[in-house]
Amino acid sequence: MIKVAIIGGSGYTALELIKLLLHHPAAEIVAVTSRQEGTPLVSELHPALAGRIDLRCEPFDADRLLAKGVECAFGCLPHAASMQTLPRLLERGVRVIDLSADYRLRDPNVYAQWYGHAHEDLAHLAQAVYGLPELYGDELPAARIVANPGCYPQPAILGLAPLISGRHIALDSIIIDSKSGVSGAGRQPKLTTHFPECNESVSAYNVGQHRHTPEIEQALTDLAEEPVEVLFTPHLIPMDRGIFSTIYTTPLRSFSQEQLLELYRAYYARAPFVRVVDHLPATKFCTGTNFLDLTVRVVRGRVLVLGCEDNLVRGASGVAVQNFNRMYGHPETTALL
Amino acid sequence: MIKVAIIGGSGYTALELIKLLLHHPAAEIVAVTSRQEGTPLVSELHPALAGRIDLRCEPFDADRLLAKGVECAFGCLPHAASMQTLPRLLERGVRVIDLSADYRLRDPNVYAQWYGHAHEDLAHLAQAVYGLPELYGDELPAARIVANPGCYPQPAILGLAPLISGRHIALDSIIIDSKSGVSGAGRQPKLTTHFPECNESVSAYNVGQHRHTPEIEQALTDLAEEPVEVLFTPHLIPMDRGIFSTIYTTPLRSFSQEQLLELYRAYYARAPFVRVVDHLPATKFCTGTNFLDLTVRVVRGRVLVLGCEDNLVRGASGVAVQNFNRMYGHPETTALL
Amino acid sequence: MIKVAIIGGSGYTALELIKLLLHHPAAEIVAVTSRQEGTPLVSELHPALAGRIDLRCEPFDADRLLAKGVECAFGCLPHAASMQTLPRLLERGVRVIDLSADYRLRDPNVYAQWYGHAHEDLAHLAQAVYGLPELYGDELPAARIVANPGCYPQPAILGLAPLISGRHIALDSIIIDSKSGVSGAGRQPKLTTHFPECNESVSAYNVGQHRHTPEIEQALTDLAEEPVEVLFTPHLIPMDRGIFSTIYTTPLRSFSQEQLLELYRAYYARAPFVRVVDHLPATKFCTGTNFLDLTVRVVRGRVLVLGCEDNLVRGASGVAVQNFNRMYGHPETTALL
Amino acid sequence: MIKVAIIGGSGYTALELIKLLLHHPAAEIVAVTSRQEGTPLVSELHPALAGRIDLRCEPFDADRLLAKGVECAFGCLPHAASMQTLPRLLERGVRVIDLSADYRLRDPNVYAQWYGHAHEDLAHLAQAVYGLPELYGDELPAARIVANPGCYPQPAILGLAPLISGRHIALDSIIIDSKSGVSGAGRQPKLTTHFPECNESVSAYNVGQHRHTPEIEQALTDLAEEPVEVLFTPHLIPMDRGIFSTIYTTPLRSFSQEQLLELYRAYYARAPFVRVVDHLPATKFCTGTNFLDLTVRVVRGRVLVLGCEDNLVRGASGVAVQNFNRMYGHPETTALL
Repeated sequence: MIKVAIIGGSGYTALELIKLLLHHPAAEIVAVTSRQEGTPLVSELHPALAGRIDLRCEPFDADRLLAKGVECAFGCLPHAASMQTLPRLLERGVRVIDLSADYRLRDPNVYAQWYGHAHEDLAHLAQAVYGLPELYGDELPAARIVANPGCYPQPAILGLAPLISGRHIALDSIIIDSKSGVSGAGRQPKLTTHFPECNESVSAYNVGQHRHTPEIEQALTDLAEEPVEVLFTPHLIPMDRGIFSTIYTTPLRSFSQEQLLELYRAYYARAPFVRVVDHLPATKFCTGTNFLDLTVRVVRGRVLVLGCEDNLVRGASGVAVQNFNRMYGHPETTALL
Repeated sequence: MIKVAIIGGSGYTALELIKLLLHHPAAEIVAVTSRQEGTPLVSELHPALAGRIDLRCEPFDADRLLAKGVECAFGCLPHAASMQTLPRLLERGVRVIDLSADYRLRDPNVYAQWYGHAHEDLAHLAQAVYGLPELYGDELPAARIVANPGCYPQPAILGLAPLISGRHIALDSIIIDSKSGVSGAGRQPKLTTHFPECNESVSAYNVGQHRHTPEIEQALTDLAEEPVEVLFTPHLIPMDRGIFSTIYTTPLRSFSQEQLLELYRAYYARAPFVRVVDHLPATKFCTGTNFLDLTVRVVRGRVLVLGCEDNLVRGASGVAVQNFNRMYGHPETTALL
Repeated sequence: MIKVAIIGGSGYTALELIKLLLHHPAAEIVAVTSRQEGTPLVSELHPALAGRIDLRCEPFDADRLLAKGVECAFGCLPHAASMQTLPRLLERGVRVIDLSADYRLRDPNVYAQWYGHAHEDLAHLAQAVYGLPELYGDELPAARIVANPGCYPQPAILGLAPLISGRHIALDSIIIDSKSGVSGAGRQPKLTTHFPECNESVSAYNVGQHRHTPEIEQALTDLAEEPVEVLFTPHLIPMDRGIFSTIYTTPLRSFSQEQLLELYRAYYARAPFVRVVDHLPATKFCTGTNFLDLTVRVVRGRVLVLGCEDNLVRGASGVAVQNFNRMYGHPETTALL
Repeated sequence: MIKVAIIGGSGYTALELIKLLLHHPAAEIVAVTSRQEGTPLVSELHPALAGRIDLRCEPFDADRLLAKGVECAFGCLPHAASMQTLPRLLERGVRVIDLSADYRLRDPNVYAQWYGHAHEDLAHLAQAVYGLPELYGDELPAARIVANPGCYPQPAILGLAPLISGRHIALDSIIIDSKSGVSGAGRQPKLTTHFPECNESVSAYNVGQHRHTPEIEQALTDLAEEPVEVLFTPHLIPMDRGIFSTIYTTPLRSFSQEQLLELYRAYYARAPFVRVVDHLPATKFCTGTNFLDLTVRVVRGRVLVLGCEDNLVRGASGVAVQNFNRMYGHPETTALL
C-alpha cells in the first residue's frame, strides 16, 4: 500500500483524484493539504465525499507529510505555487505527480514567455517526465517528478501522433479547434464562469494566447523531430465536463478514411485508454472515464481528426492515476476501469 | 418624452430594463450610473447592448442627473445601498421606481429582522407604494416612490390572491415551493452560482430564511385582512431565467377545477399580463416576456396553484416598466408586448 | 461468478447497470437482449461502452438464456412488457430483479387503477419482494423476484421512514414536491424531452396522477401500519440526472432540528448508502453514486425533509445491484463504492 | 397593412416569426397553416403565444389564403415540401419568403446532389433572390420569391465577405468550424436531440456532408467571381440557440488586427444588423436579436474571423422580416430593434 498525499485539495482535480484513489487497491490517501482557513473536513470542502473520507485538510508541511509516510504526492496547486511548494517534497525523496503546468515545458524560456514569470525550479524541471503515458510511458517507472499533461494537449497530441510520426501531413497546416466544458476553468468563481454569463452561450477565449499551445507543440516537435507550430483555438461550452477537438490537417499524400482508421488502430493497439472509433465521438461517451476517443475523416482532400475526453478524468486526474500505475508497476488500468 | 436614469447599471435587472426602455416610445434613458472604475461605455459592461446605446456609465451625482432633466429614476442597486442613495433624488422631486427590497416592507421592524440592519429612510418608506400593479395599481399614478416587487413574491401573491380574497382557503395551510433560474442570484460571481457547481444540480437554499417571505406575507395579509404566514422554500435550478412556483393550499369547501379556473379568469379579466391557462405552465412559455402564467389543480382535496414567470422581466424589469406606464398614464402594455 | 442477463438493453437503466456490473467481481454479463432490429453490438447501442463489452444484443429467448447459464436476470423492460416476458425466466428457476413497475404494487387492483390495464402475472406478483434494501432487505436473500423500486419513491419513503415509523407526524399532512432530471423519462424521444422544449424550463407534470404515488403510499402504509395518502407533485428539471425531493410534514409534537437529525442518524446507522447530512443536499453531490442524501429542517413548526439521489444509479440500476448483493450474500456495497 | 400568412406553423421558425410579426406595424398575420390534425389554436401548438394570437391553424388552401387577402407568405415548411406547396401561391401573385432550402441553390444539379432528389420547381428557382440583405439587398424590392438564407451560411458568408471581395485571402484555405445550439435541428423529436443524449455533450455531425456547404460556396463564389470551396464542420452544442463560427483563413499579405477591424467596419458601415466588435463575441450577446456579431484576429500569420448570431432570429425568422422590410420599402430595422 503506497501512502499518498494530495497537495492542494480544494479544486476539481483534487476531488476527482480522491474519488479515483479511493478505488485504488494499492494507494492510501493519508493527507490532503489546503490553504483553506481552519482545518475543514475534506468532505466539507467537497460534500460529494461525505461518508467517503475522514481526513481533515491540513496546511502544507513537508515534515508532517514525511512523518505520515507519504511516498508519492499529487500536486493539485495552481501553476507557480506548484514549483514553490513541491521541491520541498522532491528533495526529501517523495515522488511527485504534478497536475499543474510548472514542469511540462522543458525550455524555461518558453515557460517564461507563456506564463509571464521565470521558472524557479530548474533542477527538478530538468528531471521531469512529461506524463502522457501513451508516448512517454517508458520513462515513468524511473521518474521522480512527473508533469501531468494539460487537458487540451491530450486529444491534440494523441490525435496527431499517428499522422506526424508517420510523416503523413504538412507540419505547417495544423489547426486545432477545441471546445471545453466549464470545469476546465477551475473552481474559483469569476464572471466568465458565472452561470448566467456562460450558460446558453459559446465563445472563443484566449485566441492565439492559450498556454497549452507550447505544450502541444513540444510533444508534436518530439514526434516530428523538427519544429512544429499549431494554430490552437479554445472555446467555452455550457457543460460541466468534456473536451472535443476538431483537428484540421493537410495530408502529404492521398488516404482513404479506412486506411487512416487502420493506421490509428495499429498505432494505439496497446493503449487501453485510447479508443479508435468508427462513429463520430461525443464527449458524453467519455464522461467520467479515462478514455480518449478518436476518429478520422477525409473531407475534400483534408484529413480531419476528431477527438474527445473527460477533461477532469482523462484530462487531469485519471491520467495522473494512469501515470501512478506506470510509476509503481501496477496494471495501467487499475482504479480506472 | 420622459427622461429617465438607471441607478446602478451593472447588473442583470439594469440590462433588462435598458433593453425594454429602448423600445419605449415615451421614455429616454439619459443616464446610467455605476460604481465601476472609470466611465466605461454601458455597452462595455453589457456587450449585448453594442450598437444600441451610446451612454457611458457615470458615478451617481444627483446634481448632474437633475441637470440632465431626469424625471424618473429606476433604482437597480443592492438593498441598503438603495435607501442610502435614492433619497437624494426623491427629495429633489425625481420619482423613483426602486427594484431593491428597501421600500417593500412597510414595517421597519420586519425589515430590520429579515435584513439584519435598521431601515435608514423611514420618511420615504412611509410613502412607498408596493408596485404590484394588479393589486396596488390604483396607487401608482400618484406615487413618488414605488417599491418594485421581488421575483418570488409575484407568482406567490398573484397565485393566491383569488383564493385569499374570496376566503376560499385555510390561511395556515399555505406552502409555496419555488424553483428559480440562476440569474435571480445576481451578477456577482460566487461559488454557489459558479457554473460547474450549480449546473446539473438542484438544491434548496435559504430554507425558512428567504427574505421574500415577509414580502409575500405582507401582501397576503392585505388581501386576507388578517395575518397570514406561509412556508416558502426556494430552490436553485440550472437555467438562466424563470421562476416556477407550486403552491399547496387547503380549501375551506369543495371546488372543481373548472370552478377554480373560472374564478381565476374572472379575477384577472382586466390584467393583460396574467394569463390564466388550462395547460400546466412552463417557465419557457414566459421567457423574455412580462407574462405571469397561472393554472389551478384539485388533487385529493387540496388546491394546487402552479405559476411561473421570467424572473428578470416580469420578476423585475418588466414589472418596473409596467409600473412606469401606470405612473405616467401610458397604456399598461407599452414596450412590453 | 454468477452469470447474469440484461433483459431489454437499449435504455438508460440498462446502460447504467452494465457499467456497474462490469465492476462486479462476482457477476458476469453473458447476455443482453433487445428488440432492436438485427443484432447490434451492445456498444453500438451505447457508444459509451466501446471497448468495454463484446456482446451483441440478442432477441429474448428463454432457452438460449438458460443454455448460457443465466442464473439471475435484470429486467429493464417497460411496464407491461415486463410481466409478459419475465415469467418465462422465473418459471425456469432464474431469479429476477425487475426494474419496471410491474411487480411493485402488491394489490393488482391498485396496479390496474394507476396503469390502466389488468395485471397479467398474479402468481409472481404474490411472491415479489419490494427491493428497497433499507426497509425490506431481510426478505432479499430468499427472493425469487425482486421489484426494484421507482426513482421518486426512494427519497420519499426513506425520507419519511424515521418520522412515520416513530409516529412523529400527522399522516394526512404529507406533501412531496419532487424535481427530476430528464433521464428519468427514458430514452424514447418525445416532444416534452426534446432539448429545445425542456432545456431552460421548469414545469410540473402528471400533477395528481403520477404512478409512483401508490408505490410511495404502499411503503408508507407498511411503516405506519395504517393507510397513508400523500400529495406528490413531480417537476421536470433541465439536467441529465438527479432527483431532489422537498417533503413537507406536520409534526405531532415539537422537535428541534438537532433532535431530528439525531433520529435520522440513528435510524440509518447501518445503511451504507443513506447519508444523513447537516448541510442542504444537492443532487450534484450524489451524481454517479448510489448514495441517497437526507437532511431535516424545522420551519415555523413544520418539519421539512430534503432528500436527493441520482435517479439512474440509486434510483434504478445502483439499487438493483444493491439488491443483487443482498440476494447473493455479497457485501452490500460491492461494485457500488 | 400587408396581410401575411405563415405556411407551416408548427416549428420553431414559425413561432419566432409570429412573435416578430406581432410587433410589426405594417404586417398582419391573417393565416397560419399546418398539417396538424384538427384545427388547433396557434396558441395550442405554441403555448408561449397564449393570449397573443387568436388564429386557428388551417390546412394549406391557396384559394382560402387568397380570399383572406394574403399578399405575402412566409414558407416555414421542410425542404421538398416547400417547392411542392409554395408555387400555388407564387403563381397567383403572392410574394413568398421561403425559409426552407428549396430556392437557395441556383444550380438545380447542385441541389439534387446535396439533397438527394431533383428540384421540382425550376421556373421559380430561376427567379429566386437569395435573401441575404447585406449582399443581395438591392434585388429584394422587386423579388417575387426570396430564398431566406440558412443559419450557418450567414456568419460564414458575412464573416468572409470583406476578405474575399477585397481579394485578401487564399481561396483554397478556408475552414469554417461552427457550433450550433439544438433548436437548429428543428422541433421534430429524435434521438440525437433527446435531452439526455445531447445535453452535457459536444460532437461534430454531418462532417463533410452538411447541406449548408454549397450555399456558403455559392455566395463566396459570387463574391470572388471564381469558384470557392470551403471545409465546413458543424458541431452540436447543449444550448437552445446560437451559432458561433470560427473561420480560419490564410491571408495573401500581412495585416494587423486593427487594419482588419477597420476593413470590416467600413464594409458594414451601412448594415444595421452586422456589429463589428473589438471583443470576442459570444452567442449570448446576440440571443433574441437580429444582430450578427463579427470580429477578426491575426494569429501566427493566419486571419481568424469569429462570428455569431441567434440561429432562430438572425439565422431564420429575423432575417426573413428584414427581407420583408426591404421588399416592401419599410425601414430595414422595423420590428427588429
